[in-house]
Amino acid sequence: MAMKRVASSAVQSLFSSSSTFTRNLHASSEKKKIVGVFYKGNEYAKLNPNFVGCVEGALGIREWLESQGHQYIVTDDKEGPDSELEKHIPDLHVLISTPFHPAYVTAERIKKAKNLELLLTAGIGSDHIDLKAAAAAGLTVAEVTGSNVVSVAEDELMRILILMRNFLPGYHQAVNGEWNVAGIAHRAYDLEGKTIGTVGAGRIGKLLLQRLKPFNCNLLYFDRLRMDPELEKEIGAKFEEELDAMLPKCDVIVINTPLTEQTRGLFDKNRIAKCKKGVLIVNNARGAIMDTQAIADACSSGHVAGYSGDVWFPQPAPKDHPWRYMPNHAMTPHISGTTIDAQLRYAAGVKDMLDRHFRGEAFPEQNYIVKEGQLASQYR
Amino acid sequence: MAMKRVASSAVQSLFSSSSTFTRNLHASSEKKKIVGVFYKGNEYAKLNPNFVGCVEGALGIREWLESQGHQYIVTDDKEGPDSELEKHIPDLHVLISTPFHPAYVTAERIKKAKNLELLLTAGIGSDHIDLKAAAAAGLTVAEVTGSNVVSVAEDELMRILILMRNFLPGYHQAVNGEWNVAGIAHRAYDLEGKTIGTVGAGRIGKLLLQRLKPFNCNLLYFDRLRMDPELEKEIGAKFEEELDAMLPKCDVIVINTPLTEQTRGLFDKNRIAKCKKGVLIVNNARGAIMDTQAIADACSSGHVAGYSGDVWFPQPAPKDHPWRYMPNHAMTPHISGTTIDAQLRYAAGVKDMLDRHFRGEAFPEQNYIVKEGQLASQYR
Repeated sequence: MAMKRVASSAVQSLFSSSSTFTRNLHASSEKKKIVGVFYKGNEYAKLNPNFVGCVEGALGIREWLESQGHQYIVTDDKEGPDSELEKHIPDLHVLISTPFHPAYVTAERIKKAKNLELLLTAGIGSDHIDLKAAAAAGLTVAEVTGSNVVSVAEDELMRILILMRNFLPGYHQAVNGEWNVAGIAHRAYDLEGKTIGTVGAGRIGKLLLQRLKPFNCNLLYFDRLRMDPELEKEIGAKFEEELDAMLPKCDVIVINTPLTEQTRGLFDKNRIAKCKKGVLIVNNARGAIMDTQAIADACSSGHVAGYSGDVWFPQPAPKDHPWRYMPNHAMTPHISGTTIDAQLRYAAGVKDMLDRHFRGEAFPEQNYIVKEGQLASQYR
Repeated sequence: MAMKRVASSAVQSLFSSSSTFTRNLHASSEKKKIVGVFYKGNEYAKLNPNFVGCVEGALGIREWLESQGHQYIVTDDKEGPDSELEKHIPDLHVLISTPFHPAYVTAERIKKAKNLELLLTAGIGSDHIDLKAAAAAGLTVAEVTGSNVVSVAEDELMRILILMRNFLPGYHQAVNGEWNVAGIAHRAYDLEGKTIGTVGAGRIGKLLLQRLKPFNCNLLYFDRLRMDPELEKEIGAKFEEELDAMLPKCDVIVINTPLTEQTRGLFDKNRIAKCKKGVLIVNNARGAIMDTQAIADACSSGHVAGYSGDVWFPQPAPKDHPWRYMPNHAMTPHISGTTIDAQLRYAAGVKDMLDRHFRGEAFPEQNYIVKEGQLASQYR
């Protein structure tokens, strides 16, 4: 299989537009070994028949896979040499994982995985995978593009409101038997009239801007590419060419950019200092876009008046992660893209791609991150 | 002054459209005693120069009032025979209060307040006032209509998202050093595609519906009056003629109706039973629209899957109020209408009405709840 990979990669570079060829190459009646790494449902697994995103739910595809003779192993045990995942690395064909409980696919694991053909993200994002190593090995990496963009955008708007309106101190009073309106109201604001800037205006960023429109805010976006003028007008957001020129204007900054070598640590001490004093930051993109300690320090000093997000580095966040304890945060574990609605969508997307893979058919083009050894353009 | 009140009331019923007459009647160079009842700012009072809604901030009108020779007493001490408010009842001319820390103006207090002319709500709502008694005494009762409708509508949308997306269990995990995605995800949903019904579609209800529009929900509203068809189309909400016919359709019910004798206890055990199992309820209107225990019981049984609001009965909510301790709530003290932005607006509105009152000029018509003894139409 390692040979086939190399062949595929080499041939692909010669015939990269030949989908017929790709199809024939992959068409196979082989029985595959598929491993899924998901978060455990435990006592919650049985509470909702649509809870397909957990180990127990297994994306709802076990019966379908096994009826075709494939082997389907599902686990949450993903770290270290004695983990269940590690045990199956040498002979698995397909590895499915999620950003919520990522199976980190290192160059070393790829080297060990002699049968590996396909890495699927149930959801969006592939920064848990060493993409260069995957490409060099001729693998295909794909996600269910679009499967949870609405889920994440809704969640971002919720977090903006939670910070702007100072919800949590009020909630704490309610449960603690207190009543002190001043303790909340002295730093609670309307969203109306404020300036919101998104760093990145891809699918999620655009959905957020559309949902923000009726709030009568001043909407800004920074991105590599300017939107189509028609869409820009419809959304009502202003393009900013320079990130560092946008930041000081913003009452709220939302991160909507993938984690790449360019965005890793983008918000370090210096860049945070360029933000307005009292800025609110929402980050459902990736934790490593932030310098962890710089954010914690800025929350402690009050330069950042509130920080909310569902992404951390690493994940699961250790018990002593400073974001758990910094003031004025509204953090959660990584959940915004794994609502029940999102689970049903990304489970369907994974099933569709497996089906196509077994039949030797191409995936929807936008799902590819690495297509038989070739990095998709936005990852180059 | 009591005589003047009666005269005003009687004359008003004869000349109710004569604003010239009203003006002359009120024009006066008398020095007034004005009492404001607000929540205390305490250690928070000095943290924000725009925090005008607290006792210390005193709506930012002290200098202006005193420069005209008026007396201005401000307190948060409002309950019982020995309270600061009670001491001033016999000779105050104007009483200003807020829904967030309401001075309850009973028939008994009105009887004792021989000089009372005007009751102003800094904010919206007047259910802390016995309106029949106020009308019978020929008083004027007014609010700053519109001053915080945006604030409340934004807050409602935040609460819908907090419940729908199951935010609080995730937040608790973050602060408690835990990481259990399943504990959140098994009952987290997208708002998209769900059915949201508002009970009442006045100013706040309409603003909420407008903000919900880009979320691609199924929007319903129940009200006494159907919206203008143009506006209904723009907002994209469907009119429901019968409350009890709308309720079983809703995944989320939002209360946007004033507290009147018709709406007091509207959501009792029987009506809650008519809602869909697993319904989410958001109530920023008034606590007494709900049967307190019936809501707590329905949250405990799971029939109501989440309840969030900032209104309670009574206020401040006692330490043992069952809503503090019921499962799946996202309660806060009464704060949605007292953001800094809202405070600045309602402080300006109160100042404007005081100014008009001193000059004997009429208020903006929509502000009146009782106009010199006559109840505004929606309160009759």
